[in-house]
Amino acid sequence: MKIAVLPGDGIGTEIVAEAVKVLKVLDLKFEMETAPVGGAAYEAHGHPLPESTLKLAKAADAILFGAVGDWKYDKLERALRPEQAILGLRKHLGLFANFRPAICYEQLTHASSLKPELVAGLDILIIRELTGDIYFGQPRGRRTAPDGHFPGTEEAFDTMRYTRPEIERIAHVAFQAARKRSKRVTSVDKANVLETFQLWKDVVTEIGRQYPDVALDHMYVDNAAMQLVKAPKKFDVVVTGNMFGDILSDEAAMLTGSIGMLPSASLNAGNQGLYEPSHGSAPDIAGKGIANPLATILSAAMMLRFSLNQPEAADRIESAVKHVLASGLRTADIHSDGTTRVGTREMGDAVVAAI
Amino acid sequence: MKIAVLPGDGIGTEIVAEAVKVLKVLDLKFEMETAPVGGAAYEAHGHPLPESTLKLAKAADAILFGAVGDWKYDKLERALRPEQAILGLRKHLGLFANFRPAICYEQLTHASSLKPELVAGLDILIIRELTGDIYFGQPRGRRTAPDGHFPGTEEAFDTMRYTRPEIERIAHVAFQAARKRSKRVTSVDKANVLETFQLWKDVVTEIGRQYPDVALDHMYVDNAAMQLVKAPKKFDVVVTGNMFGDILSDEAAMLTGSIGMLPSASLNAGNQGLYEPSHGSAPDIAGKGIANPLATILSAAMMLRFSLNQPEAADRIESAVKHVLASGLRTADIHSDGTTRVGTREMGDAVVAAI
Ligand SMILES: CC(C)[C@H](C(=O)O)[C@@H](O)C(=O)O
Ligand SMILES: CC(C)[C@H](C(=O)O)[C@@H](O)C(=O)O
Repeated sequence: MKIAVLPGDGIGTEIVAEAVKVLKVLDLKFEMETAPVGGAAYEAHGHPLPESTLKLAKAADAILFGAVGDWKYDKLERALRPEQAILGLRKHLGLFANFRPAICYEQLTHASSLKPELVAGLDILIIRELTGDIYFGQPRGRRTAPDGHFPGTEEAFDTMRYTRPEIERIAHVAFQAARKRSKRVTSVDKANVLETFQLWKDVVTEIGRQYPDVALDHMYVDNAAMQLVKAPKKFDVVVTGNMFGDILSDEAAMLTGSIGMLPSASLNAGNQGLYEPSHGSAPDIAGKGIANPLATILSAAMMLRFSLNQPEAADRIESAVKHVLASGLRTADIHSDGTTRVGTREMGDAVVAAI
Repeated sequence: MKIAVLPGDGIGTEIVAEAVKVLKVLDLKFEMETAPVGGAAYEAHGHPLPESTLKLAKAADAILFGAVGDWKYDKLERALRPEQAILGLRKHLGLFANFRPAICYEQLTHASSLKPELVAGLDILIIRELTGDIYFGQPRGRRTAPDGHFPGTEEAFDTMRYTRPEIERIAHVAFQAARKRSKRVTSVDKANVLETFQLWKDVVTEIGRQYPDVALDHMYVDNAAMQLVKAPKKFDVVVTGNMFGDILSDEAAMLTGSIGMLPSASLNAGNQGLYEPSHGSAPDIAGKGIANPLATILSAAMMLRFSLNQPEAADRIESAVKHVLASGLRTADIHSDGTTRVGTREMGDAVVAAI
């Protein structure tokens, strides 16, 4: 088994180092190989996703990814900006199923913007389709408007698209995930306006008939954005498209108040996966040794479970993280009165010790 | 001056009746004419936006709109569903500028899901473009996928489009609104992924140079969905496209905890406007006389200010609403211990009395 380790930019290097430390102490049989990605790769090779990095990622069973991006690359043309690396990996590896848990840890409930009773025990799983929708749909570009309100003027356009098989496979992922949880799926669409999401709704409904034990409901995306604020605990598994999933998964993550704790997984049909924290590269605190490595460490646990077939090792990491939280250690982002503030490395060490 | 009154479905009739009562007591010189819209119009004329209603709306200086929609129309083909009326009115009247305030009233802070200190005094103005983007872009439909992941399978697609003049005019609206407030605009885009929103960002930046006294910043939509939860008071004027605006304006409205209080305005280039509450038709409580009419009454105030050039009358309504809130009257949706629960009609009467 081989893991491609892509630390990336900003705090990426620091947090991935801690996850690697945790993986090593488990003493499992796999190789790890590191390569640059994002801004770091642009500096080294002139491209955010160099051929060599892509080759390594393709050959690996799983990718442990840190984060990419820094303001200093804002002026680059789009194709060379750090976030293209992540879009490229999704596309070239066919990573269509994104798992974004939004979990509120008992000890961190106070960190949420929401009143504690609304988020205590929150445990939502957002399943976002990741290789279709308006993210990759062709045609797209700039042109002279052929019609519309101001024909003849400069226009930019993109295409939102989903085929039936793309919707079917992500729907299966959602229903299967729901079977292991509370057996409820909410499919989020905008079928009242978009042709794409009328097909989405139709197909999810059809696939749902193959899972009579799972309750399915449908919600418009604007309503979902509201209900997440109003009563987040009413959700269990949420399945949606790439664009709506981008927005709702981040909204849900922030509801927990501890985005520094949230892992994510992006899988393809062969269970090859990319694992990364839900938060970004945080260039403002990079190099200071204060970033929270737990989301990345928990991403490594997801990796062991989903791509490397090591569920016990995954459990060990997750228990260790719970233990460390219970012992009162906190990085700056989740620190509060009465807890002990530690840096990135001490937090990683504490998880290792707990294992 | 002429007002087209379109009560619509569900609680629409009840709440619009109260707003009409308030308008009448002001004793201003305008005519009001009522017409069916949405499901009610479908029942009466077989179409959610009959020719006669559209004609009345076009001829009016302003439209006072209730709400449309009911589950019983869910099975109708899309073109006949109630919400098509609102899309049709936006399109045929060119109502491109949607004003969606998210205000947290002092006495209602407790109703928010968020901790009081995060929302007390909240006052955001979301300006949503309303006639472009993926809502109206052609081509759209179903077809056999010409390429992509599963060529040859059934596919649905939509087109996101913005022309430069469409972005320019909504940017001017936002900068001008900001001049009357705290002189800050946040433009929300997804320029890291979408061609359409790279043009959006470029054009908003250009127009911003004509308003050197207004500070402009840019935020990705996923980040905006997070920051609204984390620190909503950091926002003042937010300008964004039709799709992102749909999601973010509802999220922001729900943050206040009192969506039953929030009006909205949708204007065209000639200041003709449609005014409606931010909430929906709530078929579950329709006919019970318990709906909150204040969002509709405050929409009537916006109408007097923006389309009917009666700013003093608008002020009178807004002061009366504040007075009624201060006196402790509350409809069920905003009721709490120590306040007096009233129905739709009593609330309307109280506003009339306060005027
Ligand atoms: C960086 C960006 C292209 C990306 C996305 O929009 O998918 C990010 O926001 C995410 O959610 O992983
Ligand atoms: C009913 C629907 C078409 C509409 C929209 O998406 O614009 C509504 O959600 C709104 O925001 O007014």
